[in-house]
Amino acid sequence: MYPYSFINGKIIPFNKAFIQVNDLALLRGYGCFEYFCTYKGLPVLIDDYLKRFENSARELDLPLPYQKNEIVQIVMNLLKKNNITEAGIRFILTGGYSEDAFTVSKPNFIILIEPLKIPEKNVYRKGVKLITLKHQREFSSAKSINYLTAIRNFHVCKKENAYDVLYYFNNHILEVTRSNFFIFKENNLLTPKDDILHGITRKIIIEIASKEFKIEERELPLIELNAATEAFLSGTTKKVLPVVMVDKLKIGNGKVGLNSKHLLKLFENYISKRIQEFQDKYRISH
Amino acid sequence: MYPYSFINGKIIPFNKAFIQVNDLALLRGYGCFEYFCTYKGLPVLIDDYLKRFENSARELDLPLPYQKNEIVQIVMNLLKKNNITEAGIRFILTGGYSEDAFTVSKPNFIILIEPLKIPEKNVYRKGVKLITLKHQREFSSAKSINYLTAIRNFHVCKKENAYDVLYYFNNHILEVTRSNFFIFKENNLLTPKDDILHGITRKIIIEIASKEFKIEERELPLIELNAATEAFLSGTTKKVLPVVMVDKLKIGNGKVGLNSKHLLKLFENYISKRIQEFQDKYRISH
Repeated sequence: MYPYSFINGKIIPFNKAFIQVNDLALLRGYGCFEYFCTYKGLPVLIDDYLKRFENSARELDLPLPYQKNEIVQIVMNLLKKNNITEAGIRFILTGGYSEDAFTVSKPNFIILIEPLKIPEKNVYRKGVKLITLKHQREFSSAKSINYLTAIRNFHVCKKENAYDVLYYFNNHILEVTRSNFFIFKENNLLTPKDDILHGITRKIIIEIASKEFKIEERELPLIELNAATEAFLSGTTKKVLPVVMVDKLKIGNGKVGLNSKHLLKLFENYISKRIQEFQDKYRISH
Repeated sequence: MYPYSFINGKIIPFNKAFIQVNDLALLRGYGCFEYFCTYKGLPVLIDDYLKRFENSARELDLPLPYQKNEIVQIVMNLLKKNNITEAGIRFILTGGYSEDAFTVSKPNFIILIEPLKIPEKNVYRKGVKLITLKHQREFSSAKSINYLTAIRNFHVCKKENAYDVLYYFNNHILEVTRSNFFIFKENNLLTPKDDILHGITRKIIIEIASKEFKIEERELPLIELNAATEAFLSGTTKKVLPVVMVDKLKIGNGKVGLNSKHLLKLFENYISKRIQEFQDKYRISH
């Protein structure tokens, strides 16, 4: 963790960042969060992530204690104070200190600045394996802090030499632990639509891919994995990460596909443009 | 909250009871807990609750940092230090401080002493209404801190003038938010068996009721509510609390039944015996 954090209005050293033990996040796992990253040291996509954070907070009935533009300013100050290049940024909004260990009160709002961990180049070259698990997250459209099943099953992943877990429910593919999931059937790009967290990277991919591929956002039966020519997962730090195997099923020819490689390039171009826009908007000298 | 708490080996004032913000309970809702109460100021049923706590910790792969007899001693000291009569006792075992906000580390172990809130006599006389909700808890046999659905739906309860929510899944009754559920069909006592938290009060009720009633621990289809002559929920602070209505369905004649009243008396007699045993075991003068 980087040396400075933010809690309830104050930038403080991380090693002094504490909450009292009667917060509903600790007592009841009740809270929501966001996680995104900097590009060239800037929180380039912060507007998109803040919009989703607002939505999660609304779904959990937790009022956000700051306006969006105030939060942008806090993040900018915090990045400067930490004097870092690239970092992960985590917002946490908790159920607050509860008298009866059940009733929601005034939320605690925390911002942590974390070292950025991105997959190595090798992982993109080889692609990854996923294993499937029957599971649907509670309040799946909110980014709640509830990762019970995810963490509990992480060791199964390691045992099976898999990169992550792909959730399904009622025989439909949903999402990966902390990512969204896509398949290509030739030049058609398919991804689940409902009962998932709508990723910001997912949204960008759909936007940029729609110029070159036919997009199908819909229910995705598990059985369609058999017809997939490529697959990948999408996420903040993973961007477009090729999936070459699901359980014992080889996806396509079992190698990283051309469409996925191409999409990764399109995604990186898109981010470059957004960096430029962000620098212009906040008049940051290059 | 009472003035003294326990964290990781130390009894400290509650208003100084903090954890650092990178605990997995806060970041990922990962942890388990127990909640029980004193009788005559003594943690009479602590052995039963500790056994379940150990089980929850095992299911979440969290090592308990103390032996059971050490924990009993800590609780006794903590009750004495707080100088209270009756109280709720909460154990919390968290996923610990995590480097990468995902990997479990050394758990934080917290004990809180809380004011005891028990239902008023009037509630036992009138009985309560429940509303149903389709939901099955993740890792239902562990008492994890995940109460996302419970807290999120609490306002629905209030709106419907209901006491609590009865969960069902695949058309089978499971459990109440923080209680187990029983029905009587004449002199047969029925309660769900699987995919629920096995309550300590539930266990005691089955034990004492089995001398007078036929017990059926099994899958309980929702439709059987129609045939119920009585219903009640069981829990640490609720003991045997009559349920007279579920959604719009009157249970039996819609009034508190004789069997439920009788079971409450049997339960209180049982506790009296256990108090005596506890006093004898720990050589507490009467």
